[in-house]
Amino acid sequence: MSWLKILGAVIVGALLLTVGILLGHFAIPKGGNGSGAPSWVQTVGRDLNESLLQSFMDQVESEKIRENLKALASQPHMATTKGDEELVKLLLRRWQDPQIGLDSTSEDVYGAFLSFPDPQRPNSVAVGVPGGGIKIFTTRRSEKNVTADQAHADVVQPYAAYAPPGNPRGRLIYANQGKRSDYQELFNMGINLNGTIAITRYGGTGRADKAVNGAEFGVAGVVVYTDPADINDRRASEEETYPNSWYMPPSGVERGSYNGYFGDLLTPYYPAKEFTYRIKESEIQGIPPIPTQPIGFEDAQTLICNLSGHKAPASWQGSLGCSYHVGPGFRTGGLFPNTSDVQVNVHNQRVIKNSSNVMGFIRGSEEPDRYVLYGNHRDSWVHGAIDPSSGTAVMLEITRVLGKMLKEGKWRPRRSIIFGSWGAEEFGLIGSTEYTEEFYSKLRERSVAYINVDISVFGERPFVLPALLRSCCTIPISAFTAGDGKLCSPPRDVSHSRPSPLPGPESLTPLHPPYSLGSLGAGSDYASFIHYLGITSMDIAYTYDRNKTSARIYPAYHTAFDTFDYADRFIDPGFTSHQAVARTAGNVLLRLADSLVLPLNVSDYGEKLDELYSAAAQGDFLDKLNANNLSLGTDPLKAAIDRFKSVAADFNQRITKLKKEESPSPLQIRMVNDQIMLLERAFLNPQAFPNKYYYSHVIWASKSSDQATFPGLADAYTNALETGDWDQVRKHLTIVVQAVESAASTLEAVA
Amino acid sequence: MSWLKILGAVIVGALLLTVGILLGHFAIPKGGNGSGAPSWVQTVGRDLNESLLQSFMDQVESEKIRENLKALASQPHMATTKGDEELVKLLLRRWQDPQIGLDSTSEDVYGAFLSFPDPQRPNSVAVGVPGGGIKIFTTRRSEKNVTADQAHADVVQPYAAYAPPGNPRGRLIYANQGKRSDYQELFNMGINLNGTIAITRYGGTGRADKAVNGAEFGVAGVVVYTDPADINDRRASEEETYPNSWYMPPSGVERGSYNGYFGDLLTPYYPAKEFTYRIKESEIQGIPPIPTQPIGFEDAQTLICNLSGHKAPASWQGSLGCSYHVGPGFRTGGLFPNTSDVQVNVHNQRVIKNSSNVMGFIRGSEEPDRYVLYGNHRDSWVHGAIDPSSGTAVMLEITRVLGKMLKEGKWRPRRSIIFGSWGAEEFGLIGSTEYTEEFYSKLRERSVAYINVDISVFGERPFVLPALLRSCCTIPISAFTAGDGKLCSPPRDVSHSRPSPLPGPESLTPLHPPYSLGSLGAGSDYASFIHYLGITSMDIAYTYDRNKTSARIYPAYHTAFDTFDYADRFIDPGFTSHQAVARTAGNVLLRLADSLVLPLNVSDYGEKLDELYSAAAQGDFLDKLNANNLSLGTDPLKAAIDRFKSVAADFNQRITKLKKEESPSPLQIRMVNDQIMLLERAFLNPQAFPNKYYYSHVIWASKSSDQATFPGLADAYTNALETGDWDQVRKHLTIVVQAVESAASTLEAVA
Repeated sequence: MSWLKILGAVIVGALLLTVGILLGHFAIPKGGNGSGAPSWVQTVGRDLNESLLQSFMDQVESEKIRENLKALASQPHMATTKGDEELVKLLLRRWQDPQIGLDSTSEDVYGAFLSFPDPQRPNSVAVGVPGGGIKIFTTRRSEKNVTADQAHADVVQPYAAYAPPGNPRGRLIYANQGKRSDYQELFNMGINLNGTIAITRYGGTGRADKAVNGAEFGVAGVVVYTDPADINDRRASEEETYPNSWYMPPSGVERGSYNGYFGDLLTPYYPAKEFTYRIKESEIQGIPPIPTQPIGFEDAQTLICNLSGHKAPASWQGSLGCSYHVGPGFRTGGLFPNTSDVQVNVHNQRVIKNSSNVMGFIRGSEEPDRYVLYGNHRDSWVHGAIDPSSGTAVMLEITRVLGKMLKEGKWRPRRSIIFGSWGAEEFGLIGSTEYTEEFYSKLRERSVAYINVDISVFGERPFVLPALLRSCCTIPISAFTAGDGKLCSPPRDVSHSRPSPLPGPESLTPLHPPYSLGSLGAGSDYASFIHYLGITSMDIAYTYDRNKTSARIYPAYHTAFDTFDYADRFIDPGFTSHQAVARTAGNVLLRLADSLVLPLNVSDYGEKLDELYSAAAQGDFLDKLNANNLSLGTDPLKAAIDRFKSVAADFNQRITKLKKEESPSPLQIRMVNDQIMLLERAFLNPQAFPNKYYYSHVIWASKSSDQATFPGLADAYTNALETGDWDQVRKHLTIVVQAVESAASTLEAVA
Repeated sequence: MSWLKILGAVIVGALLLTVGILLGHFAIPKGGNGSGAPSWVQTVGRDLNESLLQSFMDQVESEKIRENLKALASQPHMATTKGDEELVKLLLRRWQDPQIGLDSTSEDVYGAFLSFPDPQRPNSVAVGVPGGGIKIFTTRRSEKNVTADQAHADVVQPYAAYAPPGNPRGRLIYANQGKRSDYQELFNMGINLNGTIAITRYGGTGRADKAVNGAEFGVAGVVVYTDPADINDRRASEEETYPNSWYMPPSGVERGSYNGYFGDLLTPYYPAKEFTYRIKESEIQGIPPIPTQPIGFEDAQTLICNLSGHKAPASWQGSLGCSYHVGPGFRTGGLFPNTSDVQVNVHNQRVIKNSSNVMGFIRGSEEPDRYVLYGNHRDSWVHGAIDPSSGTAVMLEITRVLGKMLKEGKWRPRRSIIFGSWGAEEFGLIGSTEYTEEFYSKLRERSVAYINVDISVFGERPFVLPALLRSCCTIPISAFTAGDGKLCSPPRDVSHSRPSPLPGPESLTPLHPPYSLGSLGAGSDYASFIHYLGITSMDIAYTYDRNKTSARIYPAYHTAFDTFDYADRFIDPGFTSHQAVARTAGNVLLRLADSLVLPLNVSDYGEKLDELYSAAAQGDFLDKLNANNLSLGTDPLKAAIDRFKSVAADFNQRITKLKKEESPSPLQIRMVNDQIMLLERAFLNPQAFPNKYYYSHVIWASKSSDQATFPGLADAYTNALETGDWDQVRKHLTIVVQAVESAASTLEAVA
């Protein structure tokens, strides 16, 4: 071989080696095993897969939701009853299904303090001869059966849960909505309320307050009914009501829990386990101190339309077809002799019973220690087709589709997802509250958001705007369309009519556009998540068009008429509204679970703060502050809010920049996500409201005042007007400033 | 060319190409820019660099610490005085130095509620003719100057901070340590305490309690002194004391804050900013209700050795060189006529003054949103060489070496480091507490640990074990050697003699080996970090060999003798103890900031829980529980602790496994680190101790009971023995079970 050939061979060899090195280095990606970049480099930065999301949406079927609802509402399933226990099994079966189930499930049991009527001795309201035992009128034991699917041996008779047993007897008065001001007005008319029985209508105040307020004036027993003016758009006849329309029939009675707090009443702040310390029943606050019983408007008419005394004020009049008088006692010439007494017979029994939460889990692939929570209660008062089964039917359809994708290996969320079917909500959000108590620390540290879908669809078609979805979140999801509507940001029209045993739907403020953050109140299971744990929460439903109905709530609410037939024929024939809710809620859930950067817009909190501030910085409110040396013109509250808004804008810019990076560091992403997640927590102050169990969120806490500013400030202000205690106003200004500054510090660039 | 040759060339060529590909793929690491794995893949998993740590240790110089101390203790620097303000500037100058400074600094100012004597009208304790103004004896205005560096115009006269002004006059009694039981014993002797002046010695109870307890018995004024038996190993003469030894001279007076809580007294739970709501002075709890004044033992001898009345019990006797009698009034034949009264003259003034925290920051490279905190207070009572400047001198040496490494580009920590020079600690941990109040949310969410080095070296050489380091942490750092001793796990011998205005050194329980976790109490600035925020805390110092001295604390504590000369000649000639403390504290700091997996051992909490449980599960304690239907034999507390231990063991196994992985996912590492970090938070319960400001840590809260179990349980038990209120015992059992279950849930495998 010549040297030239050797040289040529060496050059060719060197070239081949070089090409090989280059190919090896640049053309072949390093695998995860052995040397080279580890496998997680590929997955750790994965973002939401939009086509997978679309596939989820496509798979959500209205017919499946209808089937779910039929199964769920097939029999009464009041908390801890046989019907409830059977649904526990149904949930576990579905979530453990090898084809469509979740990763794992659990059943968490709490010993809940409940209250039931005595099946042997039905409650009643009776009119009798004074001093004697002869009853000349007694209210119905329960609703009339107007459809076949309504009849069942386990239909619980109407009662006021937690009202004490007793048989008070006295002259009847009509006390409007049982507000303190209503009783005061009767007192001002010169009526001696001592020993009377007050008949009141639902609305205006929480259920329990009607008895709590009455007792303060000496009232001995309370009767509650639903006026057709408040629920039926004034329709009162059988022809105009269910099964001929969605309106409440004359025999319909709204059951409910008569308590002013939420969570198990004997174990505030601690999970109601067997070992848990329980307070004495006498220490429970906010439940009726006197016997109380709800009745239908048919029976209410018999009582109210026969009352004597002054004519009731115009705003107290309703649609029972007569002029309302206030009593006391019955009029001459009416159905009852003028001297007749009314007796309230309550035989309720309080008992600790085991109530279950059914929990389902999907493990997150990249951030298993971040939780997206989704829940609804399982227990109803009777068949509960709408409340709560319309929500459970939607949840089961969501888990069916997700479970299928999971089991087929097509999907695993970035973050963990926890589904909760809560027990004993109707008695005061017990299951969800006990859950937050038991797992307080880890939920507080790890939860990204809680999604609640209780009543999915509030109104029948003519009464809802087709595109209307109920708002919503404590931090809004960045605008996106879902189903057939836009969610949360900005809502087109939102109303706040979610009924609630606490504090009652009418005390919730309606929202008006433009409005970015909705006040959730405490009407469903999100209450302890937002108020106690400071977890961003949302409640999703179709709601009403308030131009078309004035009903407080869908008319079959908490009655024996809330059946599958009612849902299928009136609320949502075809179940397309349910389908839209399922798609929307599932969409929100997937975005929260899978998005690389959490899809929550922190800036909208700035607007909310501005709005709450404005309410305090004008008119009488500001004048009174100034007059008491609490000048709000050059104030630290304004400065704190301005700082928050500026810091939030910077934060959004940093996120935009981060999203543009080709491959941002997973710890950088985690950092901004933690800032978003923990923003809500920065508004918590466990010292802010020492007299209100659980409420510690400075922006969203409940308030009694009708001032539209920060709740603690509003209540302190209203109180100071009466008592002159302006120190508490200053204290609550400090609390708000501190919370807003904390929130700003949370979003500020770290270190 | 033959086919053979061609084949050979092809084979060789293919081999070369293959070798090239293999080399290119495996032998040459992919760069971070352009194609291939992103740059953070290399840095995100970086662990502590041991040789860098060694280099840090090597650079820590004893002489630099000595120089720091000389500068820091050159003049008195009581909170908010000129001397303090000059140290603020010194700190800022050092931390802003271009060669040895930190990334950034800030000065945070709070309006602190303080208390000072009136320079125009010195406080005193005087003996006078009854009814007249003639004084026949008056206590010294301040300490005698025994060395040159002690003299300074700004030496504050001894006083009891927060004691109210007044001039009560009455007959003197000796009340031992001023415990409630001491006054009770005097009362039992038949002495009418009404209107008397009580002289008491330091120890046995918190400073303020001596007056609080006395006032309950009608005492009108309180005098406090340090008995040579308690501080000087009984040495009392000038020859035996400083400047001839480390013992307190006869004129020495321990100053101090007389308050029972910590943090700014007018703004509990809120930072003392200008806008902050302040409670009324009359609402402050835990400060002396009657004039109180500390004096030296020379003056105390004049008063006590002339008392009449019963001879004091043996345990009340001290080392003033006479037999102590209890009074009331002086004996015939003594220095004072039997009828002489004692008058306590206090002219203290309460005032809100601006006090600064100086903060220094080093930004973390990978996890900037995780904080390792390190701090000490800056303010002293007089020159404060030991308390607190020995700690500040150490901190400045640590920041010098770290700052140098940082500025030279040799090092940046994985996590952020925050240094704090706290203001107004001596008045009740004010600066550190206000800091935790202002930044509550982000500190709670992001802080890995807080390291406190206040008094670095407690005793002079003969009195400390050279290898002894004071314990320590609420979660122990996994065993490692540092300086010349082992830290925390397991400590060889640890004593708990850190003095404290709250609740007083003697009420702290000494620790005995084997003991893994120490109870920090509330004696220095770690208090709000551990008790309020639930941040793992530690306090590092050389402490005593209790076989060699019985001194409550180093004898110059809070006196005018706590000077550089005292430190240089007696406490630590050569400053090698200081050096060891600096190396140890810096070592802990670097390990916490740089270790990939946090070097905290969660399992040791299991031992602590066992120990607290054992104290409740035996003897009288258990018998009483059983007698009151609180059986602890088959109990949920045992089950919860067992679950915790099992979960902690599993957790450690997962960590071991994770550490063995070649390149674990950064989010997996972050997950376990968050579990370690948040374990301490799981023990918080803001509802547990409603009457104790800030205390919310169920394991480490303060207690009054001497039962060695969980603090809330111990106090409830002791109270139940008196009142029969066993419900509170059950409640605190629930609180403990819930906290332990929460802690277990935090460590449990996620999802």
